Amino acid sequence: MKDAPAQPPSFRLHPQLAADTEAVAELPLSTVRLMNDSRFPWLILVPRRPEIRELHELSERDRAVLVEEVALASRVLARATGADKINVGALGNMVPQLHVHAVARFRNDEAWPGPVWGTGERRPYPAAELARTCASFAEALRSA
Amino acid sequence: MKDAPAQPPSFRLHPQLAADTEAVAELPLSTVRLMNDSRFPWLILVPRRPEIRELHELSERDRAVLVEEVALASRVLARATGADKINVGALGNMVPQLHVHAVARFRNDEAWPGPVWGTGERRPYPAAELARTCASFAEALRSA
Repeated sequence: MKDAPAQPPSFRLHPQLAADTEAVAELPLSTVRLMNDSRFPWLILVPRRPEIRELHELSERDRAVLVEEVALASRVLARATGADKINVGALGNMVPQLHVHAVARFRNDEAWPGPVWGTGERRPYPAAELARTCASFAEALRSA
Repeated sequence: MKDAPAQPPSFRLHPQLAADTEAVAELPLSTVRLMNDSRFPWLILVPRRPEIRELHELSERDRAVLVEEVALASRVLARATGADKINVGALGNMVPQLHVHAVARFRNDEAWPGPVWGTGERRPYPAAELARTCASFAEALRSA
């Protein structure tokens, strides 16, 4: 009898991202999550590809899809919030799984003009507001 | 006599980027510059499109080219430096012209695991090292 073939690795959201964020939507490539930090309107896109840490490890085809999904999330954030600037970043110094931040920034937000990462303490949304915010971004992504 | 037609706006590197960075290479869409900060191996890609502030303001075609150029710069940084992580970001809170950072990060660099933006004081390269570093990245981008 032969051994069963090795299963290919499957995508699983990193536990730290699962803990810090809330589900918003599934796009063709990426899982979209809301950072549970009411200080900043902040979406995170995680391409559903296992074992990818860096943008340059994705296939060219996936990168073309990802950049369109990031642009979609950025446009939705800009329209929904009237932000002064959208910040986009893929850092991964703390959580190695490739994920892209899209953050609506305002000249009077608490980190401006610095980056949001590592600034102050995360301030979770009240539960009802968290659900409402996720639903509202989900609808905006669907209808954009 | 008719008035001369209005000239379309033309691309010009933002003076702050021109002051903080040094020319490395011209890719099909982006001007590549080296951040003149010897603390971090740090490339900046500026799409040569006038009056663009946000990723979602570029055309879809330009975004597909840009993400490949960013992946190229990231791969070159990773190979040249053996970095622990590449950070990619388009912030623009200080300089509104769309530009994308690709930064080689190390677990023992002075900002780890935080972002490089707004951390400490920029430490310019000595002139000869600046020229050598730019030439070396230019060659790596050409031959990648």
